[in-house]
Amino acid sequence: MIRSVGIVCKPLKEVVSSMVPLLVAWLRQRQIDVFVDEETATCIDPGIPIVAREELAEKINLLIVLGGDGTLLSAARALKGHKVPILAVNLGGLGFLTSVTREELYPVLEQVFAGQHQISERMMLNAETIRDGKPAEQQIALNDAVINKAALARMLDFDVYVDRAQVGRYRADGLIVATPTGSTAYSLAAGGPIVHPHLDAFVITPICPHMLTNRPLVIPDTARVEIDIAAAEEPVYLTLDGQVGFQLQSRDRVAITKSASRVYFVQSPRKTYFEVLRSKLRWGER
Amino acid sequence: MIRSVGIVCKPLKEVVSSMVPLLVAWLRQRQIDVFVDEETATCIDPGIPIVAREELAEKINLLIVLGGDGTLLSAARALKGHKVPILAVNLGGLGFLTSVTREELYPVLEQVFAGQHQISERMMLNAETIRDGKPAEQQIALNDAVINKAALARMLDFDVYVDRAQVGRYRADGLIVATPTGSTAYSLAAGGPIVHPHLDAFVITPICPHMLTNRPLVIPDTARVEIDIAAAEEPVYLTLDGQVGFQLQSRDRVAITKSASRVYFVQSPRKTYFEVLRSKLRWGER
Amino acid sequence: MIRSVGIVCKPLKEVVSSMVPLLVAWLRQRQIDVFVDEETATCIDPGIPIVAREELAEKINLLIVLGGDGTLLSAARALKGHKVPILAVNLGGLGFLTSVTREELYPVLEQVFAGQHQISERMMLNAETIRDGKPAEQQIALNDAVINKAALARMLDFDVYVDRAQVGRYRADGLIVATPTGSTAYSLAAGGPIVHPHLDAFVITPICPHMLTNRPLVIPDTARVEIDIAAAEEPVYLTLDGQVGFQLQSRDRVAITKSASRVYFVQSPRKTYFEVLRSKLRWGER
Amino acid sequence: MIRSVGIVCKPLKEVVSSMVPLLVAWLRQRQIDVFVDEETATCIDPGIPIVAREELAEKINLLIVLGGDGTLLSAARALKGHKVPILAVNLGGLGFLTSVTREELYPVLEQVFAGQHQISERMMLNAETIRDGKPAEQQIALNDAVINKAALARMLDFDVYVDRAQVGRYRADGLIVATPTGSTAYSLAAGGPIVHPHLDAFVITPICPHMLTNRPLVIPDTARVEIDIAAAEEPVYLTLDGQVGFQLQSRDRVAITKSASRVYFVQSPRKTYFEVLRSKLRWGER
Repeated sequence: MIRSVGIVCKPLKEVVSSMVPLLVAWLRQRQIDVFVDEETATCIDPGIPIVAREELAEKINLLIVLGGDGTLLSAARALKGHKVPILAVNLGGLGFLTSVTREELYPVLEQVFAGQHQISERMMLNAETIRDGKPAEQQIALNDAVINKAALARMLDFDVYVDRAQVGRYRADGLIVATPTGSTAYSLAAGGPIVHPHLDAFVITPICPHMLTNRPLVIPDTARVEIDIAAAEEPVYLTLDGQVGFQLQSRDRVAITKSASRVYFVQSPRKTYFEVLRSKLRWGER
Repeated sequence: MIRSVGIVCKPLKEVVSSMVPLLVAWLRQRQIDVFVDEETATCIDPGIPIVAREELAEKINLLIVLGGDGTLLSAARALKGHKVPILAVNLGGLGFLTSVTREELYPVLEQVFAGQHQISERMMLNAETIRDGKPAEQQIALNDAVINKAALARMLDFDVYVDRAQVGRYRADGLIVATPTGSTAYSLAAGGPIVHPHLDAFVITPICPHMLTNRPLVIPDTARVEIDIAAAEEPVYLTLDGQVGFQLQSRDRVAITKSASRVYFVQSPRKTYFEVLRSKLRWGER
Repeated sequence: MIRSVGIVCKPLKEVVSSMVPLLVAWLRQRQIDVFVDEETATCIDPGIPIVAREELAEKINLLIVLGGDGTLLSAARALKGHKVPILAVNLGGLGFLTSVTREELYPVLEQVFAGQHQISERMMLNAETIRDGKPAEQQIALNDAVINKAALARMLDFDVYVDRAQVGRYRADGLIVATPTGSTAYSLAAGGPIVHPHLDAFVITPICPHMLTNRPLVIPDTARVEIDIAAAEEPVYLTLDGQVGFQLQSRDRVAITKSASRVYFVQSPRKTYFEVLRSKLRWGER
Repeated sequence: MIRSVGIVCKPLKEVVSSMVPLLVAWLRQRQIDVFVDEETATCIDPGIPIVAREELAEKINLLIVLGGDGTLLSAARALKGHKVPILAVNLGGLGFLTSVTREELYPVLEQVFAGQHQISERMMLNAETIRDGKPAEQQIALNDAVINKAALARMLDFDVYVDRAQVGRYRADGLIVATPTGSTAYSLAAGGPIVHPHLDAFVITPICPHMLTNRPLVIPDTARVEIDIAAAEEPVYLTLDGQVGFQLQSRDRVAITKSASRVYFVQSPRKTYFEVLRSKLRWGER
């Protein structure tokens, strides 16, 4: 039973001021409590309770995200695995993750309130940085964890292990460890395959590998993937979902595992997974 | 308890006559019954009972295959899913599937008889041809089912469905549906990813797709993949493991599912999965 | 000065009967002699002189091709290098080669008759089959010469030489030697680069090479490329422009050189080379 | 007639002190003047005249480079197009550019002094940064000019023009413009083709393009390639040969043209271009 809804909107004044008040009114008419996060709040008049994005999850039964895949990724991480379904509306064209359009918002909301919606559950990954043998930093991501070299650096050398078995030493611009959800994001641009979200897997995709036989690898998500950064003279970076970044140090280890947190998307009633793919990738056309 | 062993050897007279008699003697010394298939029998003196390859499975507790990946694929299909472990010895260098070398044969056999070996269980796929709505032909494969155009034909048009949802219409030289085991064979050459054998998945890799966005797809092996051949003026072919082939007709449908049959490899005690990959693909070297 | 025009049309009755008579009338009004080839003639009423496609070149100053890239390729080869400009009109959407649309036909014709058009000159390749050391067959192509295996065969082994220096031994489904014009056709689907038509080059693109480091190669068009087919148990094929095919024999050699023949396209006044690329490949859109 | 030789050595104390004195003695025995650059001088005893690397070209008839491809790239740029042949000796295994081995140094030197060597002439590229419409910075490169995003940034948007015709808007990690010599370096890792050094061409290879149809492009080296950086919130970088880097600004334009400077390599008498390729890329092996 939905009693309380959070709204996270891409902070575009025009969009927020035109869409959010209507949405709030629609929800309140149904006796629903509404909260917005601080970023969304910067664009609208007061009158809606503001809650820090990280604390929203505890107050709500549904999160409505208005924006693109970027806004969604950030909101999804902020839920930290709370079992709050996300209804993500794409304000632009069509996102891999945000397949509900602006026009579909209210019809889909009706379905959600009637309990007639479908949930697509997605795994997240956990990236832990280990420095001098000790855990130093921990983050979750819905799409991917990316290790890469500095812009002016040449190659990066690193060793990859899966469940303590060495996969190989890589010399590359970097490495992407993606979830199935993230397989259509950066990993795809780097040459990785499309992995169906129902598959319990990680994709390990090297970025511009020096060795041409270093091809993308798909492994079970029960595996622990470890990346050992070789001694590097230049800085190395770890990025989560292309949004949160850290500088690593020489000889750091990054360990990727499946996160206990998951994300629960309200599915578009109109677009199946393959329809979104086909539409985004223009399959069926030349 | 191993009481009876089958031997299938690549029919190279020199190899068979030098290796098989020694192996038979070694086994008989341990009171083991030994059988060979007809092809192997053509290369050696009589005295070893001959059994058709397809009937071997019912008589033996262990199959020793001497040859390369090709000999193994054919022997694996002939076992039709009987739970008979296969000890595959590579007569040449190193195969993706045949990672036990000639030198390791007897030490590994000792381990097997002592029950100290590890088994790597692999899924097979089932390919069914449906013509005029009726099942016409059915085959299993360990590596892949491949649909492709005739050599002198131009493009092939076909539609792919996963669990009745349309993936897309393809225009390509063909399509590979591979198991994880087959992901390092033809699918890799066509641009597919390497899929770990512990993952329950199919890889769907188009061959030279006209549309550049038609990228390899990894899906759960619980799926039913259907390929509908469009009306074609020129012949179209279905090949299993690159070894068994059929001509398809315009408007045939090929349905790929996980087979109930599995294959049980005796693992090399010396080479892990990633060690074989690294060695075959020369990772770690330039 | 244009005095005589040939028309080659894709033999679709509806198209020929609706477009060709109008075009013939338009030309005759300007005192131009008009000829059609035999295939085109099968679709229309008599009254237009028919000339075999191979003999058209000697009778005309301009060839109008109505069809797609396929019709154009065939017509271009039939001109055998005669310096007759081709005005190619795409009846469907937009071809890489046929960038003049149906609507632009008459405006472009006006330009051609006024001498205000631009010509894009394209190289052709010459493919010679050498059997037992003797020339056996010779063909020209505008796009590509392709060597490939039979549909049910496994791999093909062949050696490639450039000006007698060995490039390497390949194990693959086949090999494409393309002109810059052909670089956006089959070679692109097989992973080759896009080569600008002003570059005097061949692209050598392996099809599904077994060895992952066998990458496309771009070489000067002054080179002689030789492909030596290894002893093969199964048939091997040579195809020109995807339209004309031959069966090769074990140990045949195929030699590719730049042809003395060239093709002269009347350029679309509205679409530059990159505009066609951008439009066909949907660059600039996601 | 060679009267004066420069030596540039990778500054590894052990290598310099073991190889350089012998080489100097060998040269002086033949009445040759010898100079070293400052970096090389840091590793050896005095007694050899030191000249700044940028001024070496004016004093010498031959430059001997001891190191890997990196040392060579840097030395080649420092010659600024002076027609001084470079004899490059690889201290490690085999480089794409440094194909003379340590053992071959003296035999090849004998050939050079006897005038029996072959020169391989290579083009360089010129990269000019234009800021607010005015030239801001200019550099040459033997391999490539690379534009890329900052490590923690997401995508980079830029427009590419060839001779003022728009190629397209790219969204990618960056863009490589490589010479044929550079086609086997970073461009190859990013998916570019191998371009023979006798071809007068640039390769334009996008790095991890968002749009899957953005394939590598090979164009004549007479072209002017311009890259317009879109308004970017995060820093963008330009790197030459992976060695010299600059930070670009939003709305900068980078113009790449063929440089008037060329590089003149003394060819290994033992390794042809394709032999080096085959060896480095392990063609002919699996």
